[in-house]
Amino acid sequence: MNQATAATNLKQETPVNRLHNFCAGPASLPTEVLLKAQAEMLDWEGKGVSIMEMSHRSSDYVKVAQEAEQSLRRLMQIPDNYKVLFLQGGATLQFSAIPLNLLGNQDGKGKADYLTTGAWSGKAIKEAKRYAQLGLGEVNEVASSKDSNFTTVPEQSEWQLTEGAEYFHYCANETIHGVQIFQPPQVDAPLVADMSSCILSEPIDVSKFGLIYAGAQKNIGPAGLVIVIIREDLIGKASEWCPALLDYANQANKDSMLNTPATYSWYLAGLVFEWLEQQGGLEAIAKINRQKAELLYKTIDDSEFYINNVDSQYRSIMNVPFTLKDSSLDAQFLAEAEQAGLLNLKGHRDVGGMRASIYNAVSLESVQALCDFMIEFANKQA
Amino acid sequence: MNQATAATNLKQETPVNRLHNFCAGPASLPTEVLLKAQAEMLDWEGKGVSIMEMSHRSSDYVKVAQEAEQSLRRLMQIPDNYKVLFLQGGATLQFSAIPLNLLGNQDGKGKADYLTTGAWSGKAIKEAKRYAQLGLGEVNEVASSKDSNFTTVPEQSEWQLTEGAEYFHYCANETIHGVQIFQPPQVDAPLVADMSSCILSEPIDVSKFGLIYAGAQKNIGPAGLVIVIIREDLIGKASEWCPALLDYANQANKDSMLNTPATYSWYLAGLVFEWLEQQGGLEAIAKINRQKAELLYKTIDDSEFYINNVDSQYRSIMNVPFTLKDSSLDAQFLAEAEQAGLLNLKGHRDVGGMRASIYNAVSLESVQALCDFMIEFANKQA
Repeated sequence: MNQATAATNLKQETPVNRLHNFCAGPASLPTEVLLKAQAEMLDWEGKGVSIMEMSHRSSDYVKVAQEAEQSLRRLMQIPDNYKVLFLQGGATLQFSAIPLNLLGNQDGKGKADYLTTGAWSGKAIKEAKRYAQLGLGEVNEVASSKDSNFTTVPEQSEWQLTEGAEYFHYCANETIHGVQIFQPPQVDAPLVADMSSCILSEPIDVSKFGLIYAGAQKNIGPAGLVIVIIREDLIGKASEWCPALLDYANQANKDSMLNTPATYSWYLAGLVFEWLEQQGGLEAIAKINRQKAELLYKTIDDSEFYINNVDSQYRSIMNVPFTLKDSSLDAQFLAEAEQAGLLNLKGHRDVGGMRASIYNAVSLESVQALCDFMIEFANKQA
Repeated sequence: MNQATAATNLKQETPVNRLHNFCAGPASLPTEVLLKAQAEMLDWEGKGVSIMEMSHRSSDYVKVAQEAEQSLRRLMQIPDNYKVLFLQGGATLQFSAIPLNLLGNQDGKGKADYLTTGAWSGKAIKEAKRYAQLGLGEVNEVASSKDSNFTTVPEQSEWQLTEGAEYFHYCANETIHGVQIFQPPQVDAPLVADMSSCILSEPIDVSKFGLIYAGAQKNIGPAGLVIVIIREDLIGKASEWCPALLDYANQANKDSMLNTPATYSWYLAGLVFEWLEQQGGLEAIAKINRQKAELLYKTIDDSEFYINNVDSQYRSIMNVPFTLKDSSLDAQFLAEAEQAGLLNLKGHRDVGGMRASIYNAVSLESVQALCDFMIEFANKQA
């Protein structure tokens, strides 16, 4: 095809088919963001190329990247002594990068505390312990809620904290188990938090954290991007065993462009941040998120038909797992939900039942539609 | 916005503005691919969600992922005893992953050979040597063309090969220096080749390689994806120091879905593979690539105005660096080229001058337009 004559200017004509998407991740994105990305896909701002066909070192792209970072900094009120990194490999690669960076070159003397509250914090400690056993340091599980099937968070009074720990790791929101820790734990060590599935869902005080990381594919953008927000004094302590690309110092020195970053994902993240600012920022989105969660938990609790066993003070406002009292109806529930345009409600294989992920881009109307369906489905079986 | 009423159906009306893009990467993508991605961005195949809003474990997405792999296997005629992995972190993260996987748990006894022919193979050996010094094994530079400013490839007769090496690493195409090794070196050790900027540009015999890797952002798709093609007997030898996500065995066992992969990039790669098959596959595209390269090198060589110093047998058919005899005209050349719709011709900072990257998606017409401009510019200065 002759590139100069490819025909494509867009005209919005008929309503697009957009259903209610409760996927845990890669998750729903704001329709407005996708419309904008779609409109400028072949020709970004009249430059004659797509943003994904542009050098990451070009002035145009660098501006896009920096504006995304600035928007995130405004949204989360990130203090100036924190670096924001746009990296690859998801939160899972950070499970390795964190001990490799923060246990550091301590000649086996570095110590770290981990709190286990579900599948993801469980994976994080598993990888950290693997490195500890190789001599990188000492990794201590301060407590685990495994005995409760991860339906609550162990009381802090029972945590076995390590004096002088380099960091304290926890998962602020367990995507699979639907357990959220709303208040940052008050411990002496720098807090390292996996916020993959709750970042940007409500305001937090970043200054209470040493490091926050989040895979993008829930509240930020497409999969393939992970954001690391790190206090500057924690940078520069990496073990020699750390791959050069995973060393936060290398990436911070190069503004996350040590090599070619995931440029299109970064751009899309910027569009999501812009959309969030247009919605009124994190206070505004948190208000809607709480409404959505309250509505859904009330629907579950008011019924004799649906169950959510999570300790009420730790119920996630982003991921709501629930079971049907009669699990033989699961398949029928899912089939009828899908017919009603309510997608991706199947629970994670580790937990079973159902799960509704109600991230920022899932509207109150979508949650209302789900609740209406749930009530109707329950009534039909009565 | 009510998702159900978002208006967006596309109508192609006026010609889109697509200029000639010679970017070294992230590079030009086929217009047809971007048109298709654009058309289905909000609603993939009538499912009511974007492909980037879909679980990587959903049957729809798994089919997309598998079809992409199958298409790549057809294009490159990849034998059945090779795994194809769709990973993150670019070729640079593979610079770490390769020694971590292939020097392996050899108690410091593993050996590897590296050939240095430019900036990228130089970075690869630097990272491998770092690991060798930590006790992972022994890394040997068999030869370097640094003395020639990387304008040629050292004669194989002068290579200092290591007996019993676990692998032999080289970069098949040096993106910055414009040096391409067309024939796989004939050595005893398994060949490990960085093909980031030449993969899919012409047919190769995959069976001659142990491992081929390629960052996507040249001939495959958007940045943020790296493809690893690895012979099965080389899987499962990783050092314990290898981050779990970088261990080829873990990824091969999970079909590259140990964690959430870069789903949208993988999907786009599939569209590029499909496009390549529609063009007639690698034989057909290689024919065009050779025409493009011959045309451009002839324009350079026929002039008294432009210079390319690369040894003619190793001149890359993908990346063509050239200088103006009078470098004081560089800025004017670039400015006038951009005005003529010829973008991203500035050379890499390590080399200076100009560089035209003429990957698969850059048409013969674009190269012709460049050559016409170059001749005209030179004539104006005469």
